[in-house]
Amino acid sequence: MNLNLFQNYTAKDYIKSLQNGEIASLSKAISIIESTAVKHQLLAQEILEGCLPLAGKSIRIGVTGVPGVGKSTFIEAFGKLLTAKNHKVAVLTIDPSSNLVKGSILGDKTRMIELSTDPNAFIRPTPSGDSLGGVSHKTREAIILCEAAGFDIIIIETVGVGQNDIAVHSMVDFFLLLSLAGAGDELQGIKRGIIEMADLFVFNKDDNNNATNIRIAKADLERALHLFPAKENGWNPKVLTCSALHKIGIEEVWNLIQDYIKLIKENGFWDKKRNQQNEIWFDETLKASLLSLFYNNKEINNSLSNYKNKIRQHSISPIKAAKELIDIFTKHINK
Amino acid sequence: MNLNLFQNYTAKDYIKSLQNGEIASLSKAISIIESTAVKHQLLAQEILEGCLPLAGKSIRIGVTGVPGVGKSTFIEAFGKLLTAKNHKVAVLTIDPSSNLVKGSILGDKTRMIELSTDPNAFIRPTPSGDSLGGVSHKTREAIILCEAAGFDIIIIETVGVGQNDIAVHSMVDFFLLLSLAGAGDELQGIKRGIIEMADLFVFNKDDNNNATNIRIAKADLERALHLFPAKENGWNPKVLTCSALHKIGIEEVWNLIQDYIKLIKENGFWDKKRNQQNEIWFDETLKASLLSLFYNNKEINNSLSNYKNKIRQHSISPIKAAKELIDIFTKHINK
Repeated sequence: MNLNLFQNYTAKDYIKSLQNGEIASLSKAISIIESTAVKHQLLAQEILEGCLPLAGKSIRIGVTGVPGVGKSTFIEAFGKLLTAKNHKVAVLTIDPSSNLVKGSILGDKTRMIELSTDPNAFIRPTPSGDSLGGVSHKTREAIILCEAAGFDIIIIETVGVGQNDIAVHSMVDFFLLLSLAGAGDELQGIKRGIIEMADLFVFNKDDNNNATNIRIAKADLERALHLFPAKENGWNPKVLTCSALHKIGIEEVWNLIQDYIKLIKENGFWDKKRNQQNEIWFDETLKASLLSLFYNNKEINNSLSNYKNKIRQHSISPIKAAKELIDIFTKHINK
Repeated sequence: MNLNLFQNYTAKDYIKSLQNGEIASLSKAISIIESTAVKHQLLAQEILEGCLPLAGKSIRIGVTGVPGVGKSTFIEAFGKLLTAKNHKVAVLTIDPSSNLVKGSILGDKTRMIELSTDPNAFIRPTPSGDSLGGVSHKTREAIILCEAAGFDIIIIETVGVGQNDIAVHSMVDFFLLLSLAGAGDELQGIKRGIIEMADLFVFNKDDNNNATNIRIAKADLERALHLFPAKENGWNPKVLTCSALHKIGIEEVWNLIQDYIKLIKENGFWDKKRNQQNEIWFDETLKASLLSLFYNNKEINNSLSNYKNKIRQHSISPIKAAKELIDIFTKHINK
């Protein structure tokens, strides 16, 4: 792939090639929106702005679960089922360890061999961003680009250990929690708040060795779910089982997601949730832009490490240092 | 209490009255630093700046645990023990539900009757702030004021359900997790990350009815703790039991905290941790100040709800709206 191809690409060029479903262009465009370089910001905004009218029509599905639960195997089986049904499937994996790394440390392409060679699938790790909700910020925008490129099902994969799940929940239509069943350790390691977010629980590795455990775990969880308050979306969370490895039970998951989407499109929750997500997106973009404006300011850049040193040497208080830096910023904002 | 007394108080007046240990002045000063009103910001900074040289000498103890574990009863017993030893004890409770309310919803004063009437104790709820780490920001500053007012032991109480604990951990010297023992549900409801943060686990309600459960839970937890990696502070987390109600086992907790403080003062971790906390404080203050500068800007104030409406009506994208607001900000920053 000749990446120099994109050297003189304008936003219009990107938008046009995305509309043509060109994968190399999609990859490059996502890199541009993920870039923290100032020179990419305007281009990124223009691409996104141009893609927005083309976006918003996919089904966005969050998949979470602790490491070892079989997320990749599940997503591969699920994705292949969908491409066989003529869907175009994008998988965005949130890799918490890859903030600074361009590629994927998890090696997603080798994790999902079948899906990654499928012309109707696109797999891409996205960095998990900073404390200001950078995760959702960039992943949210990658969703827009994938939709503009014609992907009608977007799967967002997270590792199910906290903050990322909450961010993902704020940008998907449907949230699936993949789990294993063992003796008494159902949903082990999954944080309480995440259970409340799930629309569907799937016990993976439902095979001969494990069938009894899974039956018990499923019944236990179903009983427990009755104790949770009704959800705003009007949907009662369900429990299914599958064997991702043997591709058993995957079709049932897809059928159930379709039922859910039908329900929330009818009862108005689809529009409501998308609008709420838009407001969260606005809020995040605003804060991220403000921080970017600040930390990319030349004078702030010149002064920041100096102030940090002074704080370490106790020659200025953190409060006074912050105040002085804010003063520098207001004086030099337009320089 | 005549609050008009403080009407013309300058920062110097506050600092002087804090040095005299005047509680009414401490209360008022904490209200000023918690205030989001622009008119209070300069005064707050001056008070804090003046208090800093007087602060930093207390032992800061975080106490967490799920609701119902007996935190108030424990803190009351522990606090009374300390005041009997001529310590001055400040209790700052982080109340996640009181962001907008000035007082305490939890009614701390009625929760800790003995301690709240003790002249050497000060109890104060602090609001849990916003998504930008407002919690730690304001609580951290309340610690400074309490120390300046002569309190040599500061207890920070949280409810043990997530984000707040992490914030508290970043501002205390010692982190205590209060728990109950039941059949197989030790530490139930406590998130995994919090276990790694604890320096001491205390099983409360160790009385005749519960003794066997507690023995088992303690042994189980001690075994489990051996599996965790060694901590940077050189301390092996301990497990104790107590009955806060009957004031049994409380002295042991205090002895152990003293051992810990002795250790980390000797091995240099005390200074190291306080310095790290200072840097976190700086970073939080900087971000909070920047957001305050932005959201208190008159032009932003005038435009923000307008943009939110347009986003709701889909007449502008969140990205474009954010960009335009940032442009308004840079043009009008000094107005």
